Amino acid sequence: MAELPFQQIRWTDGNTGVVILDQTRLPEALVEKTLVDVEHIEEAIVSLRVRGAPLIGITAAMGLAALVNGLDTSDVDMVRTRAVEWADRLAVARPTAVNLAWAIGRMRRIIDAAWSTSSDLAAALIDEADRIHEEDRAMCRSIGEHGVALFAPGSTVLTHCNAGALATGGIGTALAPVYVAHERGLMPRVFADETRPLLQGSRITAWELQQAGIEVTVLTDGMAGALMALDPPDLVLVGADRIAANGDVANKIGTYGLAVQAHYHSIPFYVLAPTSTVDLATPAGERIPIEYRNADEVRRGFGRPTAPDTIPVWSPAFDVTPAALISGIITEHGIHRPPYGPSLREAIG
Amino acid sequence: MAELPFQQIRWTDGNTGVVILDQTRLPEALVEKTLVDVEHIEEAIVSLRVRGAPLIGITAAMGLAALVNGLDTSDVDMVRTRAVEWADRLAVARPTAVNLAWAIGRMRRIIDAAWSTSSDLAAALIDEADRIHEEDRAMCRSIGEHGVALFAPGSTVLTHCNAGALATGGIGTALAPVYVAHERGLMPRVFADETRPLLQGSRITAWELQQAGIEVTVLTDGMAGALMALDPPDLVLVGADRIAANGDVANKIGTYGLAVQAHYHSIPFYVLAPTSTVDLATPAGERIPIEYRNADEVRRGFGRPTAPDTIPVWSPAFDVTPAALISGIITEHGIHRPPYGPSLREAIG
Repeated sequence: MAELPFQQIRWTDGNTGVVILDQTRLPEALVEKTLVDVEHIEEAIVSLRVRGAPLIGITAAMGLAALVNGLDTSDVDMVRTRAVEWADRLAVARPTAVNLAWAIGRMRRIIDAAWSTSSDLAAALIDEADRIHEEDRAMCRSIGEHGVALFAPGSTVLTHCNAGALATGGIGTALAPVYVAHERGLMPRVFADETRPLLQGSRITAWELQQAGIEVTVLTDGMAGALMALDPPDLVLVGADRIAANGDVANKIGTYGLAVQAHYHSIPFYVLAPTSTVDLATPAGERIPIEYRNADEVRRGFGRPTAPDTIPVWSPAFDVTPAALISGIITEHGIHRPPYGPSLREAIG
Repeated sequence: MAELPFQQIRWTDGNTGVVILDQTRLPEALVEKTLVDVEHIEEAIVSLRVRGAPLIGITAAMGLAALVNGLDTSDVDMVRTRAVEWADRLAVARPTAVNLAWAIGRMRRIIDAAWSTSSDLAAALIDEADRIHEEDRAMCRSIGEHGVALFAPGSTVLTHCNAGALATGGIGTALAPVYVAHERGLMPRVFADETRPLLQGSRITAWELQQAGIEVTVLTDGMAGALMALDPPDLVLVGADRIAANGDVANKIGTYGLAVQAHYHSIPFYVLAPTSTVDLATPAGERIPIEYRNADEVRRGFGRPTAPDTIPVWSPAFDVTPAALISGIITEHGIHRPPYGPSLREAIG
């Protein structure tokens, strides 16, 4: 594939640290940050310098491997003790990102194996982190290859939040088919909801697509309906934070309203996410717990008061889109169609 | 009625100037601004220190009368010449506010009458401006009295932008029934969309309702769908910038998407506006011209970059809600039901 013109995360020389693209500074500045101790890695995850469930998992795995590799001792038991300590700490840096616990779980299995030298353990952790990163890249690519079947030359896409390259180790999930369509010369055009309160659409999606030379236009969340009426996009593509067993989808707040409006305008609405996002233990969307965010993200999210100081704010971080409003769910295994239950269960195996 | 705890506009002592509440400073600061020359009055309208079609008209009329009253001459012809000069200038301060031209038109008829003394002319202009203000107050009150019929104790209302007291000389249009319900002890509760890009909902609607002691909660525009699904409001109430002869309504961007979502959730959706907003010369909504706003309101509307500097932005100021999505249009004459054409024509007379 064509390389992305930015790198979400990479090793330092000598693999004793990781270098991330600090997403909190976008779009004002393109700043890299080198993380060489556990406090830095944890802080980068907590403060959303890296974000997106897949990229958080990759960051924790690479970070943990780099920390172990940087230890100045050959006592394998001491190295293992420190590694477990760090794994415990990083596993809980954010509570809801399922990939974080999953990636750290994979690293733990390496730590728990029998190792005769600390450098063998470090090398194995680096290999495992590379594999997690590589598998994520392949997953994104696969979603993109399946999703591009929906594209014609010049297709227009409306998306919400950021489920792009900067949420993953590869070309993203919701945006993966856009990157593949672009590679194939199909000239896709993207409309990006700004996505209040935290503006991941205008800050991050707009930035990464512009960097990649893909045509992108920003609109505020409330403009999506008028766009559908006046100049309807061919597709709405969004990511997912959790997919229930029946195909109901929890995603960034605003997704549900977009799905209702797409339905009214008969615009196909697709959810793109890896099967690791599917939670068979949750039968339906109403069982997905919804996190509520700090009122000040709405009241003074831009550094100045945009609402009275003491005004109550209703600010759920996610909403749930029922399966009935979803035209298809695209995973690394293909395009799933309703009813989603059997198809998703089979994909997970 | 219970008095509002703030005053949108008033005369200075001696009626030689007007004092406005500077709405650009809300909610950070409650600042009054005294306008005593034509540059100040024009600037206050252009810079949105006063906004809302009715309030702009009142400001221009009171401002013009105050200017004339402050003239230091008794030469009636000279006074008339200056008055016409100022009227010409203020009439074009904003191009789209239909009330501005209408209010100045009423003042011109006073100027053009026969006056023997300049103080008689000034007094007549002050009277006419007071009448314009008083009629607006009565219009708001009447919309409120008709609209309150939709309220039960504890009714919840979702609104968009600001069609409240701060857009008029009285208790607003969309918010008028909320004020009346509050006076009658019905304890209405309001959810206010923040209304990007210019945040009239979180800055102005939230502020004025909080000042009046009415329970109000702010949400971002993209959260409205989730609210309708999880805790549906009883009513959606919005204002109008222009109403076509068939009942299609142009209003602040985001209104249409809200109407689509209200329709999907079977939540009654009402438009509240004076009959002066009805434009019988425009047969249907697709004929209403839509203004596009400056991209930087979206890209850096809060004083810091929230999107890449050069990113294209799609930013219509208004959208059009078709009559089919509107449960009723409430004017000072009552609640109009579909089909709107005959009822609106009869109301205008």
